[in-house]
Amino acid sequence: MTADEFISTLVFNDAGLIPVIVQEHSSHAVLMMAWMNDESIRQTFQTKKATYWSRSRNQLWVKGETSGNTQDVVSLAFDCDRDAVLMTVKQHGPACHTGAQTCFDDNTIVLS
Amino acid sequence: MTADEFISTLVFNDAGLIPVIVQEHSSHAVLMMAWMNDESIRQTFQTKKATYWSRSRNQLWVKGETSGNTQDVVSLAFDCDRDAVLMTVKQHGPACHTGAQTCFDDNTIVLS
Repeated sequence: MTADEFISTLVFNDAGLIPVIVQEHSSHAVLMMAWMNDESIRQTFQTKKATYWSRSRNQLWVKGETSGNTQDVVSLAFDCDRDAVLMTVKQHGPACHTGAQTCFDDNTIVLS
Repeated sequence: MTADEFISTLVFNDAGLIPVIVQEHSSHAVLMMAWMNDESIRQTFQTKKATYWSRSRNQLWVKGETSGNTQDVVSLAFDCDRDAVLMTVKQHGPACHTGAQTCFDDNTIVLS
């Protein structure tokens, strides 16, 4: 499947974005959640480096471009209603800008 | 942390919803992505059964209420910018309404 075929399959929201769950390929840890638009998907397919749409900066965001903590993309999948993406990556360094391994590390509540 | 403390920490979108990544506690498989509002979070804390907000039906949605494929909640976490939730669950039966184990099973593209 090409990037364009993948894009044409997906259901984007009104802002032209789709949520992406990012999972580490080896550990299966969920690293972060981010958003992609069509352009960031095309760039991700082309470079195999995880590229998102930054909603705060309103621009393409190559993960790790500044920090060096890049993500090599292994696979992408879409869900049964085509409005969410699951991407597996090989993570270099910590995933979170705080230095934590994942963006969910510091704030866990155990219910049972 | 109580449900109300958890809710007051989170950043909901303009519709009062927050995306929830649902991960199987034992296998670490990502099962699905769904949305929660404050009410569904309160009910999830109270019952320990995963409860979402259905955007299509515009009502609370206790996962598996019809199918029997319920989710016993183990933990919840929020991310570094507090606008996404990661929930781990013990999944009973398949997670997807299609009968697949996860909502991402059928549509995977391998890039490398």
